Amino acid sequence: MNAQKYESLEQLRDALRAFAADRDWDQFHSPKNLAIALAVEASELLEHFQWLTEDASRQLPAEKLKEVREELADVLNYLVRLSDKLGIDLLAAAQQKIEINAKKYPADKVRGSSRKYTERPSE
Amino acid sequence: MNAQKYESLEQLRDALRAFAADRDWDQFHSPKNLAIALAVEASELLEHFQWLTEDASRQLPAEKLKEVREELADVLNYLVRLSDKLGIDLLAAAQQKIEINAKKYPADKVRGSSRKYTERPSE
Amino acid sequence: MNAQKYESLEQLRDALRAFAADRDWDQFHSPKNLAIALAVEASELLEHFQWLTEDASRQLPAEKLKEVREELADVLNYLVRLSDKLGIDLLAAAQQKIEINAKKYPADKVRGSSRKYTERPSE
Amino acid sequence: MNAQKYESLEQLRDALRAFAADRDWDQFHSPKNLAIALAVEASELLEHFQWLTEDASRQLPAEKLKEVREELADVLNYLVRLSDKLGIDLLAAAQQKIEINAKKYPADKVRGSSRKYTERPSE
Repeated sequence: MNAQKYESLEQLRDALRAFAADRDWDQFHSPKNLAIALAVEASELLEHFQWLTEDASRQLPAEKLKEVREELADVLNYLVRLSDKLGIDLLAAAQQKIEINAKKYPADKVRGSSRKYTERPSE
Repeated sequence: MNAQKYESLEQLRDALRAFAADRDWDQFHSPKNLAIALAVEASELLEHFQWLTEDASRQLPAEKLKEVREELADVLNYLVRLSDKLGIDLLAAAQQKIEINAKKYPADKVRGSSRKYTERPSE
Repeated sequence: MNAQKYESLEQLRDALRAFAADRDWDQFHSPKNLAIALAVEASELLEHFQWLTEDASRQLPAEKLKEVREELADVLNYLVRLSDKLGIDLLAAAQQKIEINAKKYPADKVRGSSRKYTERPSE
Repeated sequence: MNAQKYESLEQLRDALRAFAADRDWDQFHSPKNLAIALAVEASELLEHFQWLTEDASRQLPAEKLKEVREELADVLNYLVRLSDKLGIDLLAAAQQKIEINAKKYPADKVRGSSRKYTERPSE
């Protein structure tokens, strides 16, 4: 196992491949199942915030931050695993989506206007 | 705007910072709201798989793969944005979680055994 | 089709059975798929609230309330359908859960104390 | 506390009102927070199915069925609570949605055709 700090998503991807192969778990890792697992982890992450005010969410106590950090890790791991199984370059897809959003929400048009956030979710 | 291909999560993080700042949207990006947005995107991703068999999910048609690619991007973008707001190093957290899981599910003990997958979710 | 106003969850259950049978859709309604659909609908419901403040969520405009009403309906429909497939009496289960919660959170102990909401989610 | 078996969603609604009032928890029950809690519970329900095959999901062991029953109850409780806070008649909304779906997916047109399930999610 590589004990060196991961420098890239590719290294994370490779570590996850090895992890599943060593345990013969690929059989369970259909994209459908991985998409379910990802949504479940995203919800476990959200659960930590459900009764907090927005302000409280900006100042999480150390113990809570530690738990949230682990959920973020679970989400990333399933995200990378699912993208790998589908042959998708995550970073390239994310960059492309920012460019799509930049055209959809031009800064000069939406700046200062909360309409986007009060009329429809942003993405 | 940086038109070069992103090489790292840090570059993605910086692009997302600039995107929100240019539009004065940080006010909406409390960790709580970002956690909600992340869970909503993970669910939109899952929706593409909900009526597919596991086998069909391994062979997505080109048009569907394109839509799924965009949802994966949305999930990564909110994940990076939320981690940034919380001051968490995502890749380091993911690596640490794999190490925790490796101890929790030693390969020699769980290999070939589907018990973990039939009795409790794995992570 | 019964045009009379439903008086009970049983009538809703029967209407959903007929709806699926008429379309030969039972084949898709495995409990697993129904659980996924339910989670997806719950997320579509949540999406309507994601950028709102808690106060704004208490005063939804008419158009938004109409959309939220439809999402609530979708969630109930999948919930009733899934419970039916699993042979579970929803109302009885809900009543039992309230009793469990009443013991877990005795009113005289938790009243006035927000600890439960700041330390762990309530249910 | 009413120990009689609930006969209707209205009785469930009233029991949930009393439960929250007795504990002074209405302050936390903004529609936004309730929508989050509902989505989180729907995900906890889904988690029980995430690694099962569709067939296995049709034959849950007794212990698993017991856990799933509790999650279904949690979902219904938050659904009824949220609908109550928004002044929405759940059963009427569900009935209306079935009528909308009946027009959108006429039985004679979609029967035997899985297109709806292979091209887009049904609802």
